[in-house]
Amino acid sequence: MIRKGRLLTPGPTQLLPAAQLAMAGATMHHRTAEFRALYSKVLADLKIFVGTMNDIVLMTASGTGVMEASVANLTSPGDKVLVVSAGKFGERWEGLAKSYGLEVDVARSPYGDTVTVKQMQEKLKPEHKVLYMQATESSTGARHDVEGIAKALKGSNTLLVVDAITGLGTTHFDVDAWGVDVIIGGSQKAVMVPPGLAYCAVSERAWQRMETTKNPRYYFDLRKERKNGAKGESSYTPATALVAALSSAFDYLRDQGGGDLAAGRELLINNAETAAAMTRAGAKALGLKLFSPGSPGAALTAITAPSGIDSSNIVKAFRNDFGSVIANGQGEMKGQLFRIAHLGYYDYADTIAAMGALEHVLIGLGMELELGAGLRASQEAYARSAQTMAVAN
Amino acid sequence: MIRKGRLLTPGPTQLLPAAQLAMAGATMHHRTAEFRALYSKVLADLKIFVGTMNDIVLMTASGTGVMEASVANLTSPGDKVLVVSAGKFGERWEGLAKSYGLEVDVARSPYGDTVTVKQMQEKLKPEHKVLYMQATESSTGARHDVEGIAKALKGSNTLLVVDAITGLGTTHFDVDAWGVDVIIGGSQKAVMVPPGLAYCAVSERAWQRMETTKNPRYYFDLRKERKNGAKGESSYTPATALVAALSSAFDYLRDQGGGDLAAGRELLINNAETAAAMTRAGAKALGLKLFSPGSPGAALTAITAPSGIDSSNIVKAFRNDFGSVIANGQGEMKGQLFRIAHLGYYDYADTIAAMGALEHVLIGLGMELELGAGLRASQEAYARSAQTMAVAN
Repeated sequence: MIRKGRLLTPGPTQLLPAAQLAMAGATMHHRTAEFRALYSKVLADLKIFVGTMNDIVLMTASGTGVMEASVANLTSPGDKVLVVSAGKFGERWEGLAKSYGLEVDVARSPYGDTVTVKQMQEKLKPEHKVLYMQATESSTGARHDVEGIAKALKGSNTLLVVDAITGLGTTHFDVDAWGVDVIIGGSQKAVMVPPGLAYCAVSERAWQRMETTKNPRYYFDLRKERKNGAKGESSYTPATALVAALSSAFDYLRDQGGGDLAAGRELLINNAETAAAMTRAGAKALGLKLFSPGSPGAALTAITAPSGIDSSNIVKAFRNDFGSVIANGQGEMKGQLFRIAHLGYYDYADTIAAMGALEHVLIGLGMELELGAGLRASQEAYARSAQTMAVAN
Repeated sequence: MIRKGRLLTPGPTQLLPAAQLAMAGATMHHRTAEFRALYSKVLADLKIFVGTMNDIVLMTASGTGVMEASVANLTSPGDKVLVVSAGKFGERWEGLAKSYGLEVDVARSPYGDTVTVKQMQEKLKPEHKVLYMQATESSTGARHDVEGIAKALKGSNTLLVVDAITGLGTTHFDVDAWGVDVIIGGSQKAVMVPPGLAYCAVSERAWQRMETTKNPRYYFDLRKERKNGAKGESSYTPATALVAALSSAFDYLRDQGGGDLAAGRELLINNAETAAAMTRAGAKALGLKLFSPGSPGAALTAITAPSGIDSSNIVKAFRNDFGSVIANGQGEMKGQLFRIAHLGYYDYADTIAAMGALEHVLIGLGMELELGAGLRASQEAYARSAQTMAVAN
């Protein structure tokens, strides 16, 4: 049969066709009224998408670039910080903090677990200038308790920085009420456009912190970018085509929400939750185990490879037999688990077909299972939770 | 009449249509054999385009990001460096160096001039760890003498870092023979694709320098990126769509060069030189003065606004009457000059039409001139220097 290429990976994700066309057709110069209007519109849309009154900064970089910005701008060499770490992206915070000369304490859980509020509190010291964490640890599929940790930090001088690169658009946040000081997102995730843009929303007390911090920053200078953003400009030449694509994706979400982008975002989160519920139910029916059973997020489902099967072979078979890219485990988790994403532009067909393909793939690798058992469980999960969005082409 | 939008700006520049389509259609995951092959191909093409045997690093960032990388990776706090500065981008080197705690000496000329080798030598000290300069100062149109400065540095321990973001594809370089340690380019320039990617070629002694330097870097860590690049990967999620576009642009240049990308690059440089010669001749025939008469580059032509006319009004009229974006002066040069670009995807029609439009615009703003005088001079310049490339659609 024809094999249509599909990205079932937690970023890059499936592209919104309208955004692809907007990207191809974007031929603007960035220092024009036309682009300033587009850029201001995208910054305003990002505020709604994030659900914050805080100012947003958009940068031409991968998400890691804006993670670095939230280290370089908020700290001085020798500062003590706390990192919540239970996977590869938690470890990225550790590496970043160390590269900027920080003293790093870590509240750590094994891969696949989450870090509880209590575990965090046992490590927290008044002198911690910043706490760095993920909303969703994309390497394991676990969702951390941003709300609980934010509440526990209330009243302290420790800033809360959340990498929500896969969390935004898959998780309900109340950024301002919870007191999240910096929340970070990226273009290649739930917002359905290619990689190359990353952004963050920054609280007033985080802006104030930057008045005195001493670590070097130039390209990633958040204050300079905020000042230029207020004029509809970026400090340096931005990835104009991707900005046009992002605007188009927000138009789609606004349209889905009946003219209300925040409502569209909620539909998108519910969509991811439905796809995740379908995938978890199907996997369970096939006798598979979740890699992060305690707190699985809606961004992706990480499934432990069945005994005797290397997950690399599952990834390969998805690719070779069905043209679909799923994600392997990262680093030392390679071979042990595989990950199927739900963040962004995934519909019923994508989700049910991934489950169908998984059954064929596992049988091909020697596992005994009843064809259709996972599919039926996915359908039942769909029937329980289905919400439909308007048709998009 | 219909007004087709045209970017006559020194970045972003006119897009190659085939690259736009390649960008829209790129739906790859970056950790796949398919993308690794593309990425390796683009890194190899970049080597040919730059004309070097040195390793290339490609990053998702604006050009300023890779300028920052060449500061963060090559220096330690307190190091002394020399900056060659005669415009806004020279001043960017100064700002970057200061933000990383360096002691900055400057060999400076007024805007519109170049910095001579002698001027540089008067400032150069043995303790300068790096000399930072532009190949073309895009804010004034001046071309600096990279070859002369490189020769003067031979035998010293001062590394030579050249921002050739508008210089590459508009200037003949012999990077390795001259001993340029780092040369920097960007996607939105002569290579005809949108902004969002920047790259540099790094010499062996510059790689060695990085073994001991102490300034912080993480996202812009050149050694990590080199190591991953050798495997066809980037350290962090790259702007996949732009990588596909860049590959397509190199395919076009290779095709133009009869299967030889280096030959295609030479044609592209000659194209820019012809367009620049046409524009200079036309401007002169209209009685206009070049802003950088001593050493005008082929990337763009900066023209001083005629007495009594604010260049902002020239820019506005180009936009409103002809749909073309030309560049104003930057910073304190705003209002004093306008800039017309030649780097990348510009043909005879773009160049001759810009001159025709300029005549109408200047007459509209009250200047007395003979319609067609600039056009005829441009045609004569074309007839003298014309080389044609194959037809592209």
